[in-house]
Amino acid sequence: MKIRIGIMGYGNLGRGIECAVKQNDDMELAAVFTRRDPETVKVMTDGVKVYKAEDAVSMKDEIDVLILCGGSATDLPKQTPEYVKYFNVIDSFDTHAKIPEHFAAVDAAAKESGKIGIISVGWDPGMFSLNRLYANAILPDGTDYTFWGKGVSQGHSDAIRRVEGVVDARQYTVPVESALEAVRSGKNPELTTREKHTRECYVVVEEGADKARIENEIKTMPNYFADYDTTVHFISEEELKANHNGIPHGGFVIRCGKTGMNGENNHIIEYSLKLDSNPEFTSSVLIAYARAAYRLNNEGVSGCKTVFDIAPAYLSKESGEELRKHLL
Amino acid sequence: MKIRIGIMGYGNLGRGIECAVKQNDDMELAAVFTRRDPETVKVMTDGVKVYKAEDAVSMKDEIDVLILCGGSATDLPKQTPEYVKYFNVIDSFDTHAKIPEHFAAVDAAAKESGKIGIISVGWDPGMFSLNRLYANAILPDGTDYTFWGKGVSQGHSDAIRRVEGVVDARQYTVPVESALEAVRSGKNPELTTREKHTRECYVVVEEGADKARIENEIKTMPNYFADYDTTVHFISEEELKANHNGIPHGGFVIRCGKTGMNGENNHIIEYSLKLDSNPEFTSSVLIAYARAAYRLNNEGVSGCKTVFDIAPAYLSKESGEELRKHLL
Repeated sequence: MKIRIGIMGYGNLGRGIECAVKQNDDMELAAVFTRRDPETVKVMTDGVKVYKAEDAVSMKDEIDVLILCGGSATDLPKQTPEYVKYFNVIDSFDTHAKIPEHFAAVDAAAKESGKIGIISVGWDPGMFSLNRLYANAILPDGTDYTFWGKGVSQGHSDAIRRVEGVVDARQYTVPVESALEAVRSGKNPELTTREKHTRECYVVVEEGADKARIENEIKTMPNYFADYDTTVHFISEEELKANHNGIPHGGFVIRCGKTGMNGENNHIIEYSLKLDSNPEFTSSVLIAYARAAYRLNNEGVSGCKTVFDIAPAYLSKESGEELRKHLL
Repeated sequence: MKIRIGIMGYGNLGRGIECAVKQNDDMELAAVFTRRDPETVKVMTDGVKVYKAEDAVSMKDEIDVLILCGGSATDLPKQTPEYVKYFNVIDSFDTHAKIPEHFAAVDAAAKESGKIGIISVGWDPGMFSLNRLYANAILPDGTDYTFWGKGVSQGHSDAIRRVEGVVDARQYTVPVESALEAVRSGKNPELTTREKHTRECYVVVEEGADKARIENEIKTMPNYFADYDTTVHFISEEELKANHNGIPHGGFVIRCGKTGMNGENNHIIEYSLKLDSNPEFTSSVLIAYARAAYRLNNEGVSGCKTVFDIAPAYLSKESGEELRKHLL
């Protein structure tokens, strides 16, 4: 019997989940839930129906794991503690500062219902966090570095779109190659914000707009751009669609540490991702943890969990015996 | 109360464990056991005594986790199933093909005694295995690549030393940069043995030895060198000591995979290690898993485990709450 997956929210992440389910033959897509009119939502998988979000609870016996594809700002803080009353759930909650309170809310509800809720799954938080944990546990005397990109930052793209005269924009966060090299060389550099990343902006403006003013407003925008070396390229709408339509991302987690009686030996652990599609990769991580949630709950485990709490073997559809034989 | 660590076997790995214990303030070194005459073995930590290997069992109540630092060929297949009768144990068993039978032997003994034995811990098997598992679970439609080096291969260095006229030798395994680049580009290349790694040999020969014959014997040696592009450098004993005295190693685990309804998006996951000291890094991994063994056994878990079975949080001395706050 296959693991029956439900999708709550059918945006980029929801579509990514749908694709990921198709790649895992121990799973099937049971239902898609939306806050829009279900009639207006067309999914890609034959035979899968779209339902109103409020109908989800009535289908709790037909779904093994519900993947929550809402946003971290307002959706997930409400949805995850609510839906874990009825379902095993996975979310990609990524507001780092609010993880402790989100964990507490989900844990209380999940322990009450006997379900499992795995929160903050994806790549950061998620795979990057895992790599920070492993590297810190192995090399306690060391320094962590995280670089993001090259990739599209939705928040920064939105910030540019709010500048008067801007029609559309895409912002790439780019790690500075020389900073990466300094870290990899084991020099343990102290790096400022400006030294770690640059920001590249591709901007479409209204006809006759004052480009100099727009460029200046972008480059001096506090929090978003003022602390970075920012480049602004004005391009046509056609060029934006043709060359900047994807949602690539990625990054690097590096830990440099010392061992030896007197710290005489250096070690560098590096984990990196180069992703053509940020939401599809995130979805692929969520689906692997959905498998873990299903299995752990079958073993009687309940409560809120993060990637730190899940033994890696639970993510794979192979048995322990197969894993030891082929991957160890 | 600190976790009391015992070391069985005081070679490079045993000394690495001793250094790693010093870096972890929740641990202390309780005893070192050796098959040599204990009087002849001097450890680096004040107040720690060296005992005969056969005295270990009588000290079972003074040690929480015994780290087995023997070799995989003959020591560990006997030692791990034997000592897990009395101790929680960790080993670095690395004969990939024999892991299933080693697991079975350790599991039977550990379940009988109520102890835990974590086998095949280190970086390959170990951290590389973990990264293969995570990457395979996330990207089921993809290809794995593992590269080793640049690093010293003990087995290949030994093979050179057996050639007539050779006094000493050091062999480095070196990944081919263009092969790494082809993999990272997402081209999914099929790579032969020769295309992935080269072998660099630094060889000290007897005075008047026939260098041409020695070089030819090395380069044509079946299994070890015949399938590789091998370079032989003849150097003096002083030069070997001065420039090739370390035991560096490392490598790369890369998975390239596709997502999307039609596999239209490519993703690259890469994990790499650059290690000044192979035994000290391996020891640092073993010590992190010793912490996990201690905690899991306190929770009542017994039997044989591998890195696949251990939730990452068990490796860190920080609490779940601290981990979620600082590393997630």
